Amino acid sequence: MPQVLILLGSKSDVEIGRKAKAILERFKVPSEMKVASAHRTPERVKTLVTSSDADVFIAVAGLSAALPGVIASFTTRPVIGVPVSGNVNLDSILSIVQMPPGIPVASVGLDRGDNAALLAVSILSIGNTELKGELDAYRREMAEKVEKDSQELN
Amino acid sequence: MPQVLILLGSKSDVEIGRKAKAILERFKVPSEMKVASAHRTPERVKTLVTSSDADVFIAVAGLSAALPGVIASFTTRPVIGVPVSGNVNLDSILSIVQMPPGIPVASVGLDRGDNAALLAVSILSIGNTELKGELDAYRREMAEKVEKDSQELN
Amino acid sequence: MPQVLILLGSKSDVEIGRKAKAILERFKVPSEMKVASAHRTPERVKTLVTSSDADVFIAVAGLSAALPGVIASFTTRPVIGVPVSGNVNLDSILSIVQMPPGIPVASVGLDRGDNAALLAVSILSIGNTELKGELDAYRREMAEKVEKDSQELN
Amino acid sequence: MPQVLILLGSKSDVEIGRKAKAILERFKVPSEMKVASAHRTPERVKTLVTSSDADVFIAVAGLSAALPGVIASFTTRPVIGVPVSGNVNLDSILSIVQMPPGIPVASVGLDRGDNAALLAVSILSIGNTELKGELDAYRREMAEKVEKDSQELN
Amino acid sequence: MPQVLILLGSKSDVEIGRKAKAILERFKVPSEMKVASAHRTPERVKTLVTSSDADVFIAVAGLSAALPGVIASFTTRPVIGVPVSGNVNLDSILSIVQMPPGIPVASVGLDRGDNAALLAVSILSIGNTELKGELDAYRREMAEKVEKDSQELN
Amino acid sequence: MPQVLILLGSKSDVEIGRKAKAILERFKVPSEMKVASAHRTPERVKTLVTSSDADVFIAVAGLSAALPGVIASFTTRPVIGVPVSGNVNLDSILSIVQMPPGIPVASVGLDRGDNAALLAVSILSIGNTELKGELDAYRREMAEKVEKDSQELN
Amino acid sequence: MPQVLILLGSKSDVEIGRKAKAILERFKVPSEMKVASAHRTPERVKTLVTSSDADVFIAVAGLSAALPGVIASFTTRPVIGVPVSGNVNLDSILSIVQMPPGIPVASVGLDRGDNAALLAVSILSIGNTELKGELDAYRREMAEKVEKDSQELN
Amino acid sequence: MPQVLILLGSKSDVEIGRKAKAILERFKVPSEMKVASAHRTPERVKTLVTSSDADVFIAVAGLSAALPGVIASFTTRPVIGVPVSGNVNLDSILSIVQMPPGIPVASVGLDRGDNAALLAVSILSIGNTELKGELDAYRREMAEKVEKDSQELN
Repeated sequence: MPQVLILLGSKSDVEIGRKAKAILERFKVPSEMKVASAHRTPERVKTLVTSSDADVFIAVAGLSAALPGVIASFTTRPVIGVPVSGNVNLDSILSIVQMPPGIPVASVGLDRGDNAALLAVSILSIGNTELKGELDAYRREMAEKVEKDSQELN
Repeated sequence: MPQVLILLGSKSDVEIGRKAKAILERFKVPSEMKVASAHRTPERVKTLVTSSDADVFIAVAGLSAALPGVIASFTTRPVIGVPVSGNVNLDSILSIVQMPPGIPVASVGLDRGDNAALLAVSILSIGNTELKGELDAYRREMAEKVEKDSQELN
Repeated sequence: MPQVLILLGSKSDVEIGRKAKAILERFKVPSEMKVASAHRTPERVKTLVTSSDADVFIAVAGLSAALPGVIASFTTRPVIGVPVSGNVNLDSILSIVQMPPGIPVASVGLDRGDNAALLAVSILSIGNTELKGELDAYRREMAEKVEKDSQELN
Repeated sequence: MPQVLILLGSKSDVEIGRKAKAILERFKVPSEMKVASAHRTPERVKTLVTSSDADVFIAVAGLSAALPGVIASFTTRPVIGVPVSGNVNLDSILSIVQMPPGIPVASVGLDRGDNAALLAVSILSIGNTELKGELDAYRREMAEKVEKDSQELN
Repeated sequence: MPQVLILLGSKSDVEIGRKAKAILERFKVPSEMKVASAHRTPERVKTLVTSSDADVFIAVAGLSAALPGVIASFTTRPVIGVPVSGNVNLDSILSIVQMPPGIPVASVGLDRGDNAALLAVSILSIGNTELKGELDAYRREMAEKVEKDSQELN
Repeated sequence: MPQVLILLGSKSDVEIGRKAKAILERFKVPSEMKVASAHRTPERVKTLVTSSDADVFIAVAGLSAALPGVIASFTTRPVIGVPVSGNVNLDSILSIVQMPPGIPVASVGLDRGDNAALLAVSILSIGNTELKGELDAYRREMAEKVEKDSQELN
Repeated sequence: MPQVLILLGSKSDVEIGRKAKAILERFKVPSEMKVASAHRTPERVKTLVTSSDADVFIAVAGLSAALPGVIASFTTRPVIGVPVSGNVNLDSILSIVQMPPGIPVASVGLDRGDNAALLAVSILSIGNTELKGELDAYRREMAEKVEKDSQELN
Repeated sequence: MPQVLILLGSKSDVEIGRKAKAILERFKVPSEMKVASAHRTPERVKTLVTSSDADVFIAVAGLSAALPGVIASFTTRPVIGVPVSGNVNLDSILSIVQMPPGIPVASVGLDRGDNAALLAVSILSIGNTELKGELDAYRREMAEKVEKDSQELN
């Protein structure tokens, strides 16, 4: 039973989805990744969302990027949107960020499947001391990596 | 029985919807205008679209402006999207224009409810000599107005 | 006798025009594709448009992308504009979308010759049950493709 | 003991903070609102964040809008960023959205204090059936409001 | 017989046209100002341009701003384009600046009817010592104004 | 004695300068091309401009692209600015287009050295029937090329 | 003898210059403010810069905002540029920020005359313990103001 | 003891840091380069800044680019920010330029590590006749290079 459902607006977004999945696996958060287009398969999106037991949704989409908002229209559980880079970039960013009042989507940065997953883990770690501890450890590793990178400069 | 269904993403878009309605009335094209938010009322959008006999849909929406695309996901009839101005403007324009392959939306300009209606009339005038004639007459009036405006300059 | 006339602002836009033509051929909608520049050959554009029996025009243009608007200035039939990508992208998008009141153009997304053709088919399918049926079938195929893509992820 | 800590980058952001607070009060989620500038009071931000028991942080900031990211640098709990409108708008949106890999911030739309709070409630409602139920009720109210708005159009 | 023909895409651009006319009058360059829309009155634009003896054209237009380019398509005489401010601004600027190879338009800044006229005078002053002298005098006046402004600061 | 002086802000702009030079040579307009940076060699720019007998200046510059405006500050003869493409593009376009009142620059499109030269020829053809005739012939050639391109499509 | 010379591209920028002057006066840094346009008075800019004993220059300019770069072309002393808001905003920001290699300008934010002055004080405080101490005190005051603002929220 | 401390937000920014270091070495200004992320290692940034004796800081950062502002929050010494290019570019530029009142950062252009170093040298040359002389010599070399480039054109 996945705690996080990753939906890709198109199969071409798979690399960004995999970045999310890799992070979730590291934290042992069960997840599933599917393709479901808000525009080509609206029924499928609705069915996947309303029949899912996931606690958090991650939606990856480019261009006019309606997928995160459409998912959010079917659930009150947290939806994280990942805009995908392309020719314009401001299209997917603004389509995901500029949601109307009442229906929030949590946007992360362009192509940031990794941050979407970390945000999901952060959300799931509320009241979960173990997961919280692992997240803090991940942070420390990143900080140590920065120091190591710094030493390797010279 | 409306030939054109005008859907507003929010009641605050009503003035732009009225610009569309006024044009349609001039051409005696039956129309109806309703509020239906892609994000707050996804079921309502689906029901209104799939139960409608309208030949053409006009969707008016600001911010991340998913409404035209969501309507287009439920029908293969023509959908005209009208981006609404706000603090950013590129958000609604790009959200409506940058639809993914397979699901077209016909975008008109920012706040251009009038052009959305004229495009609808143009679409409906295919094979309708009378409507085509009235549309041509409207164009001539506009051209005459330009000449009159020009004379009034001096 | 073509039902759709595809005009390219420049020979370099040919791949985008071909995407449109391929879609139209699938739906057996007769079409013709020609190069006609709004700026280099204004007379040619006028002659092609006013002498054409096409029901719908598709205009493909980059940079300041005046072609769709210039076609629309010569006809009250529906004109679909396709902005072409380049160094700036907002130039062709905004030039096609931001038409003044009275002269509508139906803009589709950057390089979206395919969606321009699908929009044309959608327009032509009003009152044409057969074409409408084929369009609905095309949608179902796309939806099935999404499900197949999804299964292939894992 | 607040479950949500709202930090404003500047006192001038107070109206957006109040939109968030009003939503949280409706859902009886305890919250506190303080001013703390990432640039003028970095120590204060750190102290407030690391000494807080809040489960979720909401950070409201305009211009180069570093506050959400700086909060996220001190905690692995979820941080929601609200960009504030101004002369440029893309500045605060992009500063909040485009976080580097490893440190997620959940961006909502420009001036959307309300959506930040709803996202916080959504996060807190995981495993909280009562809160989840109230959130679903809120959605239904919004949907009913849309239908009522629609009826009032005519 | 006007040396400069000022065409406005819409009567609403008249104040920008008047800024141009005032400059031309100061330099005693005969000019005429007319409204002529590229989209609503393409024939009128063509007739006005091809029947005019003007040496230089000034075209003032907002939104998708096709007027300068359309004028340039009918003449090899210099065409100066003035983008008009609105909700987007980049639309009219890019529509006028980003002309395709072969058909130049000389763009000046947003709402800069004054600079369009000064550029026209500059063009007409080639080989005209008197006009050149007056233009140089105008520059000196501007420079003196700057020094006077500076003294008035304190 | 050059009629057109082409100044490049940097040696790296040479290909765009060559596009201009090739056009000028076709029209037998004498020209010279030099590197002169507004920022690195302000004195050189001033000396080249004020000591030149050129009737028209073409200035090619990228990034903050001050060169056309700086040339215009030293002469009342026509200055044509060519923005050069790079990582941002809007930087050079807006730096050249948005000149303050009183000092006009004629901007052409991004990397459009060709159009800068054609605009220069257009300016020089005022009162020069031969040059005007050659420019008209060039236009006809372009138009024929469009028709030829069109035939080659199929 | 001023340590900081504030140059305004136009008298209309005076309020932004006054914000700078007020800060400099607080720190008892002698300054002078003058109008000097890069485009209308290039000689004046050169004379003011090369004859000045100022250690730091602050240049305030809107639109294509060449003033900071032109000052920097005449001196190797630090030049701080302040972009001025207008219809476009990205024009003055990008014109000041995107300087070519070799000629640095220190850009501060839109209309930020205050920050330009604080940056100048910061530069002048190198090796000046007293000024450094006052700057640190100013920071502490700002931090206290934030805490006071925070208390006044409730 | 470094006079300039160069901090990179990420190891991937090293080439831009090296451009800065090379310039500083030419001017014999002692410098050190380290990686320190505002978001991943906030404590490290604080420690490096507050324990450093550097007179000037150079901060290189992409995306939401908080590093220069965070450094400036810990010191009143001059901080120079270098935005790094990526998919969006306006993100790092605006994040660095649009600092709030009270905390100045000196932004240079996209990827302009060289100009950041030259600005640092310029700041350090106040009251340092020798360094000032070397900076002036560097300028003359650049000017000579422009003249040489110009001669090589033909």
